[in-house]
Amino acid sequence: MKLISTLLFFLLLISLTYSSATPTRSGKRDRVHEPCKRLVFYFHDIIYNGHNSKNATSAIVGTPAWGNRTILANQNHFGDLVVFDDPITLDNNLHSRPIGRAQGFYIYDKKEIFTAWLGFSFVFNSTQHKGSINFAGADPLMNKTRDISVIGGTGDFFMTRGVATLSTDSFEGEVYFRLRAEINLYECW
Amino acid sequence: MKLISTLLFFLLLISLTYSSATPTRSGKRDRVHEPCKRLVFYFHDIIYNGHNSKNATSAIVGTPAWGNRTILANQNHFGDLVVFDDPITLDNNLHSRPIGRAQGFYIYDKKEIFTAWLGFSFVFNSTQHKGSINFAGADPLMNKTRDISVIGGTGDFFMTRGVATLSTDSFEGEVYFRLRAEINLYECW
Amino acid sequence: MKLISTLLFFLLLISLTYSSATPTRSGKRDRVHEPCKRLVFYFHDIIYNGHNSKNATSAIVGTPAWGNRTILANQNHFGDLVVFDDPITLDNNLHSRPIGRAQGFYIYDKKEIFTAWLGFSFVFNSTQHKGSINFAGADPLMNKTRDISVIGGTGDFFMTRGVATLSTDSFEGEVYFRLRAEINLYECW
Repeated sequence: MKLISTLLFFLLLISLTYSSATPTRSGKRDRVHEPCKRLVFYFHDIIYNGHNSKNATSAIVGTPAWGNRTILANQNHFGDLVVFDDPITLDNNLHSRPIGRAQGFYIYDKKEIFTAWLGFSFVFNSTQHKGSINFAGADPLMNKTRDISVIGGTGDFFMTRGVATLSTDSFEGEVYFRLRAEINLYECW
Repeated sequence: MKLISTLLFFLLLISLTYSSATPTRSGKRDRVHEPCKRLVFYFHDIIYNGHNSKNATSAIVGTPAWGNRTILANQNHFGDLVVFDDPITLDNNLHSRPIGRAQGFYIYDKKEIFTAWLGFSFVFNSTQHKGSINFAGADPLMNKTRDISVIGGTGDFFMTRGVATLSTDSFEGEVYFRLRAEINLYECW
Repeated sequence: MKLISTLLFFLLLISLTYSSATPTRSGKRDRVHEPCKRLVFYFHDIIYNGHNSKNATSAIVGTPAWGNRTILANQNHFGDLVVFDDPITLDNNLHSRPIGRAQGFYIYDKKEIFTAWLGFSFVFNSTQHKGSINFAGADPLMNKTRDISVIGGTGDFFMTRGVATLSTDSFEGEVYFRLRAEINLYECW
């Protein structure tokens, strides 16, 4: 009986120690996986076109041989590398108070259709959120929704991982577009 | 006795809940770690050189001051940024039916030898695979094999992590090369 | 009694199997999370300016329309894409024996202040360390310290994750700067 109690105590200790030392991890997705955190933001990209230096939040900094840096290249902008520093808002209004900045780059990477590769961060320094969320992944932007990876985070988002679902909420010509990002985090520390 | 049973039940519950809520994680590598999933693909890169716009799958979009965008720069292409949209095949034949696209960029980043930094995705939309696998890491391409990180995934590859071992399967001059990617995933959800 | 022993044995087996198959994960940060590994390195960046091709370890390879590739652009270098291959040292002396190379890129991404987005690797091949550590994240470089994500690793750093805290240890004009990187790994396999 003593032995059993000792064993039980030992097992209990293992279980408790282990669970307290481990970040929250959720189960299977699509009704199976539940996120440990869910966030929705909008961000707003205004590309520099030679005439809008005041309002522009992004600029073309690399192009293929047939392109230039004030007009997005033909062949679906294939090869255009764009650097951005876009305001993040809680609703879909460009003029709402920004609660952070989306900073990084995208590269258009297909000749036949619009699609891009994204590497960027959401950088927060507000009362709501402090820290950053880092993203990477393919953005086939003609799809209604597309998933990219949350590859890490810092501050409030320390060590997080997850998936962000992007959708194009609006676009105006080749200058302004607004993305909705639904961020589902499945690892929260 | 009642207490023991209750404790046992409690412990069993913790164990089962915990294991079901946690993705598969394998043990130590090199005979110690076993991947939860292993995949082998080939992808094919044809760089735009000013004369092959029909067949080219990639293009130089950034160069150092001493370079241009139709010929890879000297000093081991240091500074050349290449955007690509390469077909992925199951065997090493360029003309096999592609089962997805490798999309992203690489930057040659050393003056003394060929080496590059990679950020890209495998994007699948076939009967075999749906979703994407995201990669990042250093590619010292003169080495027979080199390891980069699988930093995330979506769809069939939701939240995955692992290591991809690249090897140069073939190259022809400075225009065509074919990479073999052996992907070992150690976190499967 | 037999049943209890069997159950206990079963539970013990689950616990032991599980803990041996799982990488070390530390608890909460800021006195709560303890890293499983901590490393401190310095790396040294000398930007090509048209006159220093021998010593330069990095070069501008993309710029906005108003920039060029031998002088960092105005508006806080917004849009400048820099590729680097910097020596890594254990102390803050540029001339110490390098124990690896920091390879990858940064993009200045804000018009109003210096800030950049980083994607790079530490590549080691020395007696101390073999393998690579991969990083991504926002670098608001006017802050005394800033955190980026360790998104993966290979070799000695197989599958690792963590946070690296960068600080500018020194800078000289617009040509040389030295970063201190304190790497805290929270997932060690």
